[in-house]
Amino acid sequence: SVFPGVLPLCHWPLAWGRATRQPCGPLQPLGLPLAPCRAFSNNKILVELDESSGVATMKFKSPPVNSLNLDFLTEFCISLEKLENDRACRGVIFTSAVPKIFSSGLDITEMCGKSTEHYAEFWRAVQEMWLRLYSSNMVTIAAINGSSPAGGCLVALSCDYRIMVENPKFSIGLNEAQLGIVAPFWFKDTFVNTVGHRVAERSLQLGSLHPAPEAHRFGLVDELVPEEKLQEKAAAVMAQWLALPDHARQLTKSMMRKAVSDRLVAHREEDVQNFISFISKESIQKSLRMYMEMLKKKKS
Amino acid sequence: SVFPGVLPLCHWPLAWGRATRQPCGPLQPLGLPLAPCRAFSNNKILVELDESSGVATMKFKSPPVNSLNLDFLTEFCISLEKLENDRACRGVIFTSAVPKIFSSGLDITEMCGKSTEHYAEFWRAVQEMWLRLYSSNMVTIAAINGSSPAGGCLVALSCDYRIMVENPKFSIGLNEAQLGIVAPFWFKDTFVNTVGHRVAERSLQLGSLHPAPEAHRFGLVDELVPEEKLQEKAAAVMAQWLALPDHARQLTKSMMRKAVSDRLVAHREEDVQNFISFISKESIQKSLRMYMEMLKKKKS
Amino acid sequence: SVFPGVLPLCHWPLAWGRATRQPCGPLQPLGLPLAPCRAFSNNKILVELDESSGVATMKFKSPPVNSLNLDFLTEFCISLEKLENDRACRGVIFTSAVPKIFSSGLDITEMCGKSTEHYAEFWRAVQEMWLRLYSSNMVTIAAINGSSPAGGCLVALSCDYRIMVENPKFSIGLNEAQLGIVAPFWFKDTFVNTVGHRVAERSLQLGSLHPAPEAHRFGLVDELVPEEKLQEKAAAVMAQWLALPDHARQLTKSMMRKAVSDRLVAHREEDVQNFISFISKESIQKSLRMYMEMLKKKKS
Repeated sequence: SVFPGVLPLCHWPLAWGRATRQPCGPLQPLGLPLAPCRAFSNNKILVELDESSGVATMKFKSPPVNSLNLDFLTEFCISLEKLENDRACRGVIFTSAVPKIFSSGLDITEMCGKSTEHYAEFWRAVQEMWLRLYSSNMVTIAAINGSSPAGGCLVALSCDYRIMVENPKFSIGLNEAQLGIVAPFWFKDTFVNTVGHRVAERSLQLGSLHPAPEAHRFGLVDELVPEEKLQEKAAAVMAQWLALPDHARQLTKSMMRKAVSDRLVAHREEDVQNFISFISKESIQKSLRMYMEMLKKKKS
Repeated sequence: SVFPGVLPLCHWPLAWGRATRQPCGPLQPLGLPLAPCRAFSNNKILVELDESSGVATMKFKSPPVNSLNLDFLTEFCISLEKLENDRACRGVIFTSAVPKIFSSGLDITEMCGKSTEHYAEFWRAVQEMWLRLYSSNMVTIAAINGSSPAGGCLVALSCDYRIMVENPKFSIGLNEAQLGIVAPFWFKDTFVNTVGHRVAERSLQLGSLHPAPEAHRFGLVDELVPEEKLQEKAAAVMAQWLALPDHARQLTKSMMRKAVSDRLVAHREEDVQNFISFISKESIQKSLRMYMEMLKKKKS
Repeated sequence: SVFPGVLPLCHWPLAWGRATRQPCGPLQPLGLPLAPCRAFSNNKILVELDESSGVATMKFKSPPVNSLNLDFLTEFCISLEKLENDRACRGVIFTSAVPKIFSSGLDITEMCGKSTEHYAEFWRAVQEMWLRLYSSNMVTIAAINGSSPAGGCLVALSCDYRIMVENPKFSIGLNEAQLGIVAPFWFKDTFVNTVGHRVAERSLQLGSLHPAPEAHRFGLVDELVPEEKLQEKAAAVMAQWLALPDHARQLTKSMMRKAVSDRLVAHREEDVQNFISFISKESIQKSLRMYMEMLKKKKS
């Protein structure tokens, strides 16, 4: 079965990866076992870095629903940048520490009854989060252990690979239209690049939330697993991606994604102004208030 | 199974839609039941508007094959504009009143042995039809109850959703290449946005007419139903799309389709001239004459 | 089942094709049977043209692995141009005369330890091969009777149709990332146009080689057949494509592919310079040397 000139993936020398997976430094105490894991945490996100594998895990721990408010987004960007600059880290797994929800998406309270300045600051943070995640040099895997509507879906879409718990009660999708609002063009571009134009057109117009099995059927998520196998599967997929030489993989990723991220970079301020003028409309504010009241009623 | 922050589609308040679904006006006679349905008709198209649901039906009734000649296209555009401007109408279902055929596409007699002026007028009408339909603010559903080649397929492709009778004797596709002609770039763009680049490349080069089950398999139509269930299904799908707030759905649709419709708008006159110079070639005229004679023989 | 206005493919008059399928000329000896087949060959490629069908076969015969070195690429371009200008030829089937391998792709020895001038000459030949094949006016079918990594996969992707032997030991894909190098943007564009953005993004980053059944599942190849049926199947598919009028098919093909080939034409010299500066890096040269040594060890 072996013919000359073609090399099976598994034979590729591991030396291709960054040579920095083993922690080292001038202060490393001699004779002691190497610390295999470093962790840092802030209010809303817990980060653990396994230095032996080069893989970090970012756990969203902002109950009740990991909503993406200004604080969360800021912590997310800082944590991601820290890992991006840490040569011991080559890949990140994103998952939730809150049961049944991956992330509920952008926090509506940030978009309701606030000042123009606040809307601008919030929207820049959303852009920043996406730009950093979508064009990260690290391998990024979403381990989706709960529902993931709207901005939560965007976080998953921006990763290199999506593994979701197979529970059909968990759903995922860009359901903005249901709230009377419109996903921005770069949410749409990210979605189209994942599921194709037709599926995106239909799903975005209907504001569909797809149960995990349906999301898997049309490629919105790459794989389904039982909840108890999620972390193990994420680690295995990560190892497969890390078997490739970083440099070639990063250049390839950039080639695939640059056109879409450049489009936001080129229109960033315009996009902020569009968001402000849209969200400031009285009709939109009314819609969001109605939506929030409905959520409150459901909780009580 | 319910968790905070995620809202199932069916719970969305119906109030999101236009508030004009109930007929009202200064002349409404008191105490009488509201007229639930208005109809207008011209020679080739019958339009019925159910004001209680906000849904119109446009029935093509131009035997033998609902071919898209200048008169048909003109009536189509006028009818569509009327509905677009009627605040009681939020969605349109397109279907055929002629057995076994949805629409046979552009009328070849309009492209054969006519003057340059006629070709220009005809082509502008084809462009107009597509621009209005593809970017309609209303929800548009094709209830395809017969074969739908070439321009007939374009009408279906330009809708938001396609339901086809599951009869494998009914086929659909952009089969222009079989006639020795070439689908214009905006037919192609509409097709690519529905089925993807590869399927479009192969299907357009082969001028394929796909039996309904095959068309469904690769997404050229969204759903197949038995003939007797077609109208019921179309109404159910329409209700699902109308459950969304019009404004958000319309902006989303525009975001998905504007790049493609803008491309024709920017090159409209050039596209007319291309059509004229192509169709005026003696070799093309000969091809079309051969094709028409073959059709005549098959009929007799 | 027959209705007016729609014509099944099989009834289309064969006269649509070029009228030159029968060999003729002033020197044709009278009374003798017409020579149905012409052949020409050079060192690395054998070409046979069946004048009765208008179909040529190009057989790659450059053991051990049909690698695309400068000589092979030059012969390929000359042979293709010859057929392109031969009015007796309407379609080409590409296949391998070497067991188990279609083509192993670009020859690494051409990219290792050579002069800048050599890299430039080699890369221009790769560009030339792709531009001619991807925009050929003839119907092009890849009859893939062995593995087809990297540049071998590009040859297949650039054809109109891909039929592969169903043997799961044969694999195909753009696996450049595994070698520490990056597929150029026009490899990527060709790939995306065939399998879509998401599949391409994942496959290119992982440098995946897909066993034939997997490649078929996501559309990288159009059809699988047992090895002994490959030539028969290729001929049957070719006949189906040749049933269409050449002129309409060619214009349609150009409409589908021109944007992508124009992109290279517009950036051709820039692409050569990019290749040179990338391949000249010491780290890349080291990677390629390691890879070649590994291949040598596997052989011995």
